[in-house]
Amino acid sequence: MYYQPEIETIKRSELQKLQVERLKRSIDIALHSPFYAKILGEKGITSDSISTVEDIRKLPFTTKADLREYYPFGLVATDMKNVVRLHSSSGTTGNPTVICHSQHDLDQWANRVARCMYMVGIRNTDVFQNTSGYGMFTGGLGFQYGAERLGALTVPAAAGNSLRQVKFITDFGTTAIHAIPSYATRLAEVLFECGIDPRKDTKLKTLIIGAEPHTEEQRKRIEELLGVKAYNSFGMSEMSGPGVAFECTYQNGLHLWEDCFLMEIIDPETLEPVPDGEIGELVLTTLDRDAMPLLRYRTRDLTRIIPGECPCGRTHRRIDRLKGRSDDMFIVKGVNIFPMQIEKILLQFKELGTNYLITIETIGNNDELMIDVELGELFTDDYSQLQQLTKEITHRLKDEILLTPKVKLVDRGSLPQSDGKAVRVKDLRKK
Amino acid sequence: MYYQPEIETIKRSELQKLQVERLKRSIDIALHSPFYAKILGEKGITSDSISTVEDIRKLPFTTKADLREYYPFGLVATDMKNVVRLHSSSGTTGNPTVICHSQHDLDQWANRVARCMYMVGIRNTDVFQNTSGYGMFTGGLGFQYGAERLGALTVPAAAGNSLRQVKFITDFGTTAIHAIPSYATRLAEVLFECGIDPRKDTKLKTLIIGAEPHTEEQRKRIEELLGVKAYNSFGMSEMSGPGVAFECTYQNGLHLWEDCFLMEIIDPETLEPVPDGEIGELVLTTLDRDAMPLLRYRTRDLTRIIPGECPCGRTHRRIDRLKGRSDDMFIVKGVNIFPMQIEKILLQFKELGTNYLITIETIGNNDELMIDVELGELFTDDYSQLQQLTKEITHRLKDEILLTPKVKLVDRGSLPQSDGKAVRVKDLRKK
Ligand SMILES: [Zn+2]
Ligand SMILES: [Zn+2]
Repeated sequence: MYYQPEIETIKRSELQKLQVERLKRSIDIALHSPFYAKILGEKGITSDSISTVEDIRKLPFTTKADLREYYPFGLVATDMKNVVRLHSSSGTTGNPTVICHSQHDLDQWANRVARCMYMVGIRNTDVFQNTSGYGMFTGGLGFQYGAERLGALTVPAAAGNSLRQVKFITDFGTTAIHAIPSYATRLAEVLFECGIDPRKDTKLKTLIIGAEPHTEEQRKRIEELLGVKAYNSFGMSEMSGPGVAFECTYQNGLHLWEDCFLMEIIDPETLEPVPDGEIGELVLTTLDRDAMPLLRYRTRDLTRIIPGECPCGRTHRRIDRLKGRSDDMFIVKGVNIFPMQIEKILLQFKELGTNYLITIETIGNNDELMIDVELGELFTDDYSQLQQLTKEITHRLKDEILLTPKVKLVDRGSLPQSDGKAVRVKDLRKK
Repeated sequence: MYYQPEIETIKRSELQKLQVERLKRSIDIALHSPFYAKILGEKGITSDSISTVEDIRKLPFTTKADLREYYPFGLVATDMKNVVRLHSSSGTTGNPTVICHSQHDLDQWANRVARCMYMVGIRNTDVFQNTSGYGMFTGGLGFQYGAERLGALTVPAAAGNSLRQVKFITDFGTTAIHAIPSYATRLAEVLFECGIDPRKDTKLKTLIIGAEPHTEEQRKRIEELLGVKAYNSFGMSEMSGPGVAFECTYQNGLHLWEDCFLMEIIDPETLEPVPDGEIGELVLTTLDRDAMPLLRYRTRDLTRIIPGECPCGRTHRRIDRLKGRSDDMFIVKGVNIFPMQIEKILLQFKELGTNYLITIETIGNNDELMIDVELGELFTDDYSQLQQLTKEITHRLKDEILLTPKVKLVDRGSLPQSDGKAVRVKDLRKK
């Protein structure tokens, strides 16, 4: 019912036709907002400027700073009486960002979320428990509306109160859960503490995880703990919320719904597109939002397009799980590097701990990349073994970042500890 | 658009026809649930047992204890695949109560809330901020869906964070708010603390207040503080949530939507109906709920039907604001008395404080009702004035409870203080 083969497996050429049509429509609509009237007007851009998908590059970017400057309603492209909901960020620094929705927008959003959930096997016979915060958090109402549309039995548990979550899981026979990865792990702990083995004593089979960066290893661990399949979900409030990109049952990247979003991956320095398969900043244009279209919105999220076709038959391209924020990117010898790339490799070595430090320094006339990483608790101090490990790490890092770093293994506890967000990169170059 | 004169001003005779038809249908549906199959089956009751509205008295009552005993799904009357949402109480003592909804139920619930909001002048040009908790609290999703259906711009602020609520009110031009009375007062305080006079510096004009008992004096004070009209809302999760009864712009009682609920007011002791206008326990039967109809549900809420017609032209009868819980009722000399009746009268005397104590004692062969009440801070100690005041209070109380109590004015601070729920009634009678 929420599988639409004519859209999800559409031929790329047909998809591009649809995208051009919807892009032109979105520009027509956007021109009714003060912000786009100004910035598109200055460049003389109208829907007539677009005849292919690539023509989107004629448009200027939209940034979070623009949303803040035109706070609260300067990007709204319709009469306010057509707006039926807004979602506001918490805005801890400066003005919050506000996204406005028409009834059409909420409908399409719910349809998209229903499509994602259907794709991973959730049906009207499932019991879906949503542990996201409700209210302004788009993960709450977003999944609520989508799951209701699908006809699942929704349990709007909202965030917190793990014992109550556990009671819901067991008493209502919950089969599918939406949670951030760390909370999914926490729930597993509480279940076991209550003497409930989630693999045998519950009906859990599907977990939707999003919002928080996590590795493939973490996913596997959560899947084993809870006895579920865990699927990555990508969304952001600027793009309505959840339902932007989602993994299919092959778990090999997230299909981004290209009938609703036009995707670009750009180099955050040059702002030019990167070749397919390379990491860059995700830029999204809404193709089916009426109250407040966003054109070429710089998400600051880093990802890459996964080349090739997905065995599921869907033609919407897949993005890789997020690689961090573009603000974290640094450039060494002309190569863009993201801390997440390095972290991903280091995490693959069981011999290593979790603490590391990236240093970039000018030595002579060259910029050098150095990576200090702590050893794990029980690893040997046999010199040849350490040397062999160093060599292997260096090799694997070079494969990933196309640059040979100087890797140094250090004792556990010898790198600076930090609470919360660790400072992982020290740039000591002369500017 | 959400004013339906053909329903809201329907002739009473037509309304009763509709009620009979819907009651029969609800019984047919309910018989599919294990609970009603059993308790209706035992009495041989089917929809054929009903030919007039009064025939509802053939049915047994349903209580919260029944919901708990048949937890979680024993009252569900449809295939679980048709259930799209449940709301669960927190269940601090014993099993929670769980209410299940089909898509039809959610639709009708949203329509009802939209009808209430439209009735007090809220339109698609309004900005509606909901300060209710979301998730399992029915005031969150209930008002969210209703207000969206009406086309208002909804601001799903959810509970707490008053400074952020104030920012939303001013930045988004909020015109209508849903809040419990104490939180509305709190918001007014915070607005003034921020240097914002809600009467001049905001667009607030409508307040929806519910869930918490409050007096007419409190309503008036909140209206003056915020510069709004405040309307009483009545709902409970067992009856889906908000949208059961609501005040019209005449603010003279709450129209209970009799196309969706069949109302009885009973004596909680004898379980017989009380005469129109007298206080008793509200008993409700859902007439338009498919997943989980409730028949003759004892709400434990005390109210009365306000006799006469409302100038607004709506024919659905009005209930008075809640008078407390039927569990609080006590009987003296064959008269049912509720503490709220006494409190209401005492609060009308500016000379009095807020602390009082009701004592019932057997003196000789008679039960006597005694009311000790503290004087206010600045009141005189002139004997004749005190005597005059005592006389007047006694007189007004007799009018209300049809019994002459012994009233004693006492010094401020001389009655036992209590944190939270005050113990207001001491029953010292020999049983
Ligand atoms: Zn796929
Ligand atoms: Zn009226």
